[in-house]
Amino acid sequence: MFLKSLISASALGLAAVAATPALAAVDPESAFVFNSFSFLINGLVVMFMACGFAMLEAGLVRTKNTATICLKNIALYSIAGLMFYLIGYALMYTDVDGGFVGSLSFLYNPSEAELALINADEASAEMVAAVTGNGYASQSDWFFQMVFVATAASIVSGTVAERIKLWPFLIFTIVLTAVIYPIIGSWEWGGGWLNSEWYVATFGAEFMDFAGSTLVHSTGGWAALAGAIVLGARKGKFGPDGEVRPMPGANLPLATLGTFILWFGWFGFNGGSQLALGSALDAAAMSIVFVNTNLAAAGGVVAAMLITQLRFGKVDLTMALNGAIAGLVSITAGPDLQNHLTSIFVGAVGGVIVCFAVPLLDKLKIDDVVGAVSAHLAAGIWGTLAVGIFGAGTILGQLVGIVAVGVFVFVVSYIVWTVLKATVGIRCSEEDEVSGLDKAELGMEAYPEFGRGSQTM
Amino acid sequence: MFLKSLISASALGLAAVAATPALAAVDPESAFVFNSFSFLINGLVVMFMACGFAMLEAGLVRTKNTATICLKNIALYSIAGLMFYLIGYALMYTDVDGGFVGSLSFLYNPSEAELALINADEASAEMVAAVTGNGYASQSDWFFQMVFVATAASIVSGTVAERIKLWPFLIFTIVLTAVIYPIIGSWEWGGGWLNSEWYVATFGAEFMDFAGSTLVHSTGGWAALAGAIVLGARKGKFGPDGEVRPMPGANLPLATLGTFILWFGWFGFNGGSQLALGSALDAAAMSIVFVNTNLAAAGGVVAAMLITQLRFGKVDLTMALNGAIAGLVSITAGPDLQNHLTSIFVGAVGGVIVCFAVPLLDKLKIDDVVGAVSAHLAAGIWGTLAVGIFGAGTILGQLVGIVAVGVFVFVVSYIVWTVLKATVGIRCSEEDEVSGLDKAELGMEAYPEFGRGSQTM
Amino acid sequence: MFLKSLISASALGLAAVAATPALAAVDPESAFVFNSFSFLINGLVVMFMACGFAMLEAGLVRTKNTATICLKNIALYSIAGLMFYLIGYALMYTDVDGGFVGSLSFLYNPSEAELALINADEASAEMVAAVTGNGYASQSDWFFQMVFVATAASIVSGTVAERIKLWPFLIFTIVLTAVIYPIIGSWEWGGGWLNSEWYVATFGAEFMDFAGSTLVHSTGGWAALAGAIVLGARKGKFGPDGEVRPMPGANLPLATLGTFILWFGWFGFNGGSQLALGSALDAAAMSIVFVNTNLAAAGGVVAAMLITQLRFGKVDLTMALNGAIAGLVSITAGPDLQNHLTSIFVGAVGGVIVCFAVPLLDKLKIDDVVGAVSAHLAAGIWGTLAVGIFGAGTILGQLVGIVAVGVFVFVVSYIVWTVLKATVGIRCSEEDEVSGLDKAELGMEAYPEFGRGSQTM
Repeated sequence: MFLKSLISASALGLAAVAATPALAAVDPESAFVFNSFSFLINGLVVMFMACGFAMLEAGLVRTKNTATICLKNIALYSIAGLMFYLIGYALMYTDVDGGFVGSLSFLYNPSEAELALINADEASAEMVAAVTGNGYASQSDWFFQMVFVATAASIVSGTVAERIKLWPFLIFTIVLTAVIYPIIGSWEWGGGWLNSEWYVATFGAEFMDFAGSTLVHSTGGWAALAGAIVLGARKGKFGPDGEVRPMPGANLPLATLGTFILWFGWFGFNGGSQLALGSALDAAAMSIVFVNTNLAAAGGVVAAMLITQLRFGKVDLTMALNGAIAGLVSITAGPDLQNHLTSIFVGAVGGVIVCFAVPLLDKLKIDDVVGAVSAHLAAGIWGTLAVGIFGAGTILGQLVGIVAVGVFVFVVSYIVWTVLKATVGIRCSEEDEVSGLDKAELGMEAYPEFGRGSQTM
Repeated sequence: MFLKSLISASALGLAAVAATPALAAVDPESAFVFNSFSFLINGLVVMFMACGFAMLEAGLVRTKNTATICLKNIALYSIAGLMFYLIGYALMYTDVDGGFVGSLSFLYNPSEAELALINADEASAEMVAAVTGNGYASQSDWFFQMVFVATAASIVSGTVAERIKLWPFLIFTIVLTAVIYPIIGSWEWGGGWLNSEWYVATFGAEFMDFAGSTLVHSTGGWAALAGAIVLGARKGKFGPDGEVRPMPGANLPLATLGTFILWFGWFGFNGGSQLALGSALDAAAMSIVFVNTNLAAAGGVVAAMLITQLRFGKVDLTMALNGAIAGLVSITAGPDLQNHLTSIFVGAVGGVIVCFAVPLLDKLKIDDVVGAVSAHLAAGIWGTLAVGIFGAGTILGQLVGIVAVGVFVFVVSYIVWTVLKATVGIRCSEEDEVSGLDKAELGMEAYPEFGRGSQTM
Repeated sequence: MFLKSLISASALGLAAVAATPALAAVDPESAFVFNSFSFLINGLVVMFMACGFAMLEAGLVRTKNTATICLKNIALYSIAGLMFYLIGYALMYTDVDGGFVGSLSFLYNPSEAELALINADEASAEMVAAVTGNGYASQSDWFFQMVFVATAASIVSGTVAERIKLWPFLIFTIVLTAVIYPIIGSWEWGGGWLNSEWYVATFGAEFMDFAGSTLVHSTGGWAALAGAIVLGARKGKFGPDGEVRPMPGANLPLATLGTFILWFGWFGFNGGSQLALGSALDAAAMSIVFVNTNLAAAGGVVAAMLITQLRFGKVDLTMALNGAIAGLVSITAGPDLQNHLTSIFVGAVGGVIVCFAVPLLDKLKIDDVVGAVSAHLAAGIWGTLAVGIFGAGTILGQLVGIVAVGVFVFVVSYIVWTVLKATVGIRCSEEDEVSGLDKAELGMEAYPEFGRGSQTM
């Protein structure tokens, strides 16, 4: 594995270059392949985060609600994809032009140029050029963007677990993935007002959110927060004198598995958000993003461990896992930072934040089963602000975007949750909550052969 | 993550192209690298499906048989690789020429041209051309094809779980991976009779099976079905009056994990089956495959949820998981469909099919522990037919292939299972079945510290 | 999936080549992208091994220590990354020049050429050339090397589980990842004395260790062995008359999951160690590495199954899993072997070795909870020697490297463990060991709702 071998391996190529420097650049068809393959592979890695959320949440709920949370997670991932195909992608990316939302068009299918190339008996250079001129395969980008909307939806399910009814939750998921997230995404990534010349002129810089600390994670977090408030806390979570009763997760190795999968997936989340791989610049930049992503998560873990050790005299595994996630969320707005030490700091602060946000929510009697609001919303706000402090954004520009996204998502989500509550109802009966959603909603048990100490809770 | 950045990033390359359009295409050595890397990475993703099957099955059996199913899964994946190296790849791909089987040659090692290039002190352009002329690295294709045979073998283990003896099962695995699957594969992917001019002239089109709804999934399903029939149902599964006794899986989060891993792996399974990445056409086509794969699975989940809600008044998690798998199997024959809406339909029908196939098998008193025959065989037939309806195949051409594969695999498997039954025996003793295979075959417990309600069953 | 489609797909490119053979080679910028992307994707796959180790160990300890081992694994992965950034990479790779260690410099950030390119308003050809001249993005290599040091650290945690205190273990992890591993790595991969002309002249060949049977796996194994000796065995593991009391792992599906993840990750570990993907040679060589890796692991599984069947009359799942790992460790020194049959043999011998090493360690009263010393150290020695027998190395050259690494790592680790023991203490109290580390160190339970048969042990 000694690096000298690398040099000899590419010596042939280097010699050819020296003679013809004008040909050194990546040809456009190769760049097209690189860009598309980056979307596919990084997107695939992000897709696995849906599994990570499922395992994290399945590990942090009690056994009597475990099968239901598994079902919710595979259902929401499915719905996110369907909605983003049916309407979401067009709302997010078509004809936004500095405005507030894209076009109402349906069914995002492959481009005509691509179908012409694929269906041709013989491909002409013009056909290839018509395709490569787009820079990447249209559906590779769709796939990459789709797994982002799924991530936003995944954040909600953990917060509102253990007392929400299945179908109303899924109706909210439809609204979130078909409308709320695509509108938010259009504001910046679709070229909307947060990305407009007016915004730059007014606040000193466009809103900067490389991979979505605010646009994905805070969006999910605000929607979850609204849900937790409208839904209310689990029975018995908060005692009459304000005391907080622990309801420990039933399967911590599963929660650990979920966190590792999320960490794994986050490299695709942030790395793929370079949005291109067809040049040396892109490859170098994506490499920097990978390193920052890893170091910020590591900083979050170590910070959360130290904080819990110092505050409670013991290290809390759940908090260390949330520290990793908070570190990852924190760096997501600016994983292109050019000094890795800063990334460690950004991630570590995220880890500290989650340690204080979790008890704060408890104090506010907001019941977030897995700590998703703390890890995704609180750390997301911090990470977005950090780009104003350490990165290319301005603090004002970051703050306006954070507030705008927060107000829109929280208000719309609150309305949707409230309407659902007033119509179909969102909360299971008290009896079902005691016996568990698995029995009530699915008629099955997640671990039918194992002892179940919580059945009496 | 705004897409404008992409354009500037590759502007240098685009400018160069405009001046020299003749150089636009991917050079053959780069195409070779793209093609080989696609085989490796997509194959790696498929390899992980072996883990997915292991977890799915470990979650759906009872605790007393869990360690054994884990062992079977790692053993069958190992055996599949060894057999495909020793004999299978040659049977499948060498000198088939419109016929029924390849060559009986052994040990598939790297090509001479590749070894010459690797071992040369200085690589000449001729050496490179000799290697790149093949289009892809020989062993990258071997790796990709190997993980397919492993998938076929994985399907069997779930169906025959909880009462089959370890070593006879592994002997069947040897026959399946060394002989049965390679012969089936040779018929189409090796260039055999299903792919011949005679077939096209007779049935209107060659047999179309992009990634193996029939060739992989139905092959595994037929072999499993034959096994389940020869082996008989688990003791107590079917009552004297024909009633079906539920034997619920012991660990549903594990089954959920397995399903997510399978979904993840399926992108490699279908996407890699484009078999190339060295051109814009390939990258665009692979992207379409990814999107269809995801949407069909999503359709399968939602369909299975709706069906179980409507029929039973409750959503069934296990059926939703099987709906995902059935959706994936259904789209596997034609993931290159050019309208994604059709893919959703194909996947959703797969999800419906699995909901009816599972109780149908129960009615026939065929005991399929994990529902693999329903998800892989029934949905595989549907998906293959769908290419005749919506894709480039003909219904007749698809039907003939489906029947031919079914007859061959079922008959040969039935014979092999029967011979095994008559000689070494395939079924564990009644006593061992009651106490569990883990104790009988391995002398260990999967969860030694947990309560075990099923030990008395 | 028929291969003819591949040929037509790239026909355009092939035609262009024929006319201009001088342009056939991969251009240097594309090679740069290939090389960097290989580091990132293969590195990402290796990163997931941290999750594999966590699951393997969580499955093989008892429930009362499960949360702690989860915490240790996410903490050690975090620490490894931080230390390798702060100091390790420089110690390993900077200015080694045939010597014994690199430079004491801190914070490995992106290269100036890369930052210049990224920050330029308009990229010049010179800027691109300055970046691509390095062959790969600087931070992509950092990322790939970082996940290797994390692997070495992961090996230790399983051996010393169930009785070591959390923070002292993490202090050892800091020393291992900041100093011990980087020094060892510098000897060979940094261009140190094991890779020097003097070494070749003296021992007939340089020390050959393609991906680290010795440099990574034995390093972890020696450190673990020293820890197990200094720490002593778990209470009750060895009876007064020398009998070995089994302390079975609490969750074997989790251990199986971990092993599959490790197997998955190993393709990145060995494949990425080709260190380049920018030429046909590299793609062909990486493909060979993938195949050898898979076949050696398969050989290890089958060998371990046969050995346990023959010796004990039953197959042992844990040993089959360790057989997979031992097969993988064995092939790691020489996964570029050009005849795959040899790889199967090398892996199978690894599987045999682990079956004898585990009881041997028991006989020596060395308590290795998960068998990591047997699988990583014993098999690592064998695999490294095998390169002297079957590969390009000499037996003497391999032996000297094995012994040198062993002496250095064992002695330094022994000293560090001893100093920790004498100062902060490394072993938990007997009372805490009985009640479990989860309660003592974390104040929580891994499975709070499940029956816990071991609580009384």
